Amino acid sequence: MSFSPVGNSSKRISESTIHRLSLYYRALSLFEKEDYETVSSKDLAKGENLTPAQVRKDLSFFGSFGTRGLGYPVHELRRKIASILGIDRPWRVALIGVGNIGSSLVSYKEFQKQGFQIVKLFDNDQRKIGSNHKGIVVSDVKNIERELQDAKIELVILAVPATIAQYIVDDVVRAGVKGILNFAPVILRVPDDVHLRNENMAMELEYLSFAVVNNQRQK
Amino acid sequence: MSFSPVGNSSKRISESTIHRLSLYYRALSLFEKEDYETVSSKDLAKGENLTPAQVRKDLSFFGSFGTRGLGYPVHELRRKIASILGIDRPWRVALIGVGNIGSSLVSYKEFQKQGFQIVKLFDNDQRKIGSNHKGIVVSDVKNIERELQDAKIELVILAVPATIAQYIVDDVVRAGVKGILNFAPVILRVPDDVHLRNENMAMELEYLSFAVVNNQRQK
Repeated sequence: MSFSPVGNSSKRISESTIHRLSLYYRALSLFEKEDYETVSSKDLAKGENLTPAQVRKDLSFFGSFGTRGLGYPVHELRRKIASILGIDRPWRVALIGVGNIGSSLVSYKEFQKQGFQIVKLFDNDQRKIGSNHKGIVVSDVKNIERELQDAKIELVILAVPATIAQYIVDDVVRAGVKGILNFAPVILRVPDDVHLRNENMAMELEYLSFAVVNNQRQK
Repeated sequence: MSFSPVGNSSKRISESTIHRLSLYYRALSLFEKEDYETVSSKDLAKGENLTPAQVRKDLSFFGSFGTRGLGYPVHELRRKIASILGIDRPWRVALIGVGNIGSSLVSYKEFQKQGFQIVKLFDNDQRKIGSNHKGIVVSDVKNIERELQDAKIELVILAVPATIAQYIVDDVVRAGVKGILNFAPVILRVPDDVHLRNENMAMELEYLSFAVVNNQRQK
């Protein structure tokens, strides 16, 4: 999947570029915290396993040019990347499925830190509905379409069993949500204007087992 | 990152191909459960948002050819992909950091289902050391190098704070572990022969916020 960049260019931004922007954003946040006013492409590349040339290429693509000898202005560049990533404002997020993984995500600090505010929780288990997680009362998933709209939810995290995931996603889509982060181990169908990311931790381990076995085989 | 395929070919396997093999493996497991003896490339493509041509290309690359009119033998192909991915045998896994995310992963069913057996837990919190999670007693991280070796751990899941992640990874590497799945929001340095995967759920949400905002801007 790729997207048009901000502005009028017709070029496309790859997934890995967006990933690197997230890394630059984190690095710049740290530099800002430590009161740096400017950083070089070398500073930004360091620790991220990137080359300064890659950093310069990425940033020039977004119209940010460092000044030779001075580097990039930390605060301004951080703000600009935040704007490109859409995290220059908070996002209203709902989490569906307050089970094992789901309930751990309610208190995942990185979400809050980047402005992703989990403000609604849903489950279909009568024992969980009405219970309180970090100050949020769990709603019944059966009213989800209306409740997502009432709460102006923009992103959804789905942590439900594979068997019911598609039914719930259909409701989420009907509610007008355009971004879904899916933890259910199943491929979901969504319309073209809805963005879906799949997280499957077991598949990450399979990637590692493949890599380890393959390295051994090569020896 | 890319790897040489199994066998003597000098071609490389991309990350997305490995990802698709994991998907085929899951689909084949379901077909086997439902007693299918053969499946077509169309059957395998369906539900995965892939084309039959892509499926045929992937599988021919690994030396598996369907028979025209008969398709691929389910059991044999599933076994073959398991062997390529290295999941034709169980893996001994240690989980380091029994906090919020870590403790939810101890009971993550998909790991067990694919043969990733979490057999050791570590933490540096005295209140957690010695406690029991799903039958596994939490060990003190200070003896981790020896304990990983004694327990013949092959893969490690790291769910510790960013500030201490590199120190722990250095111990893990010294213990001879060759695959690490990292949940700490930090870039880690490992030697070339150690495979590292990073999971950052906040960055996944940033990808979605980028996509949603960009779609809106295009309108």
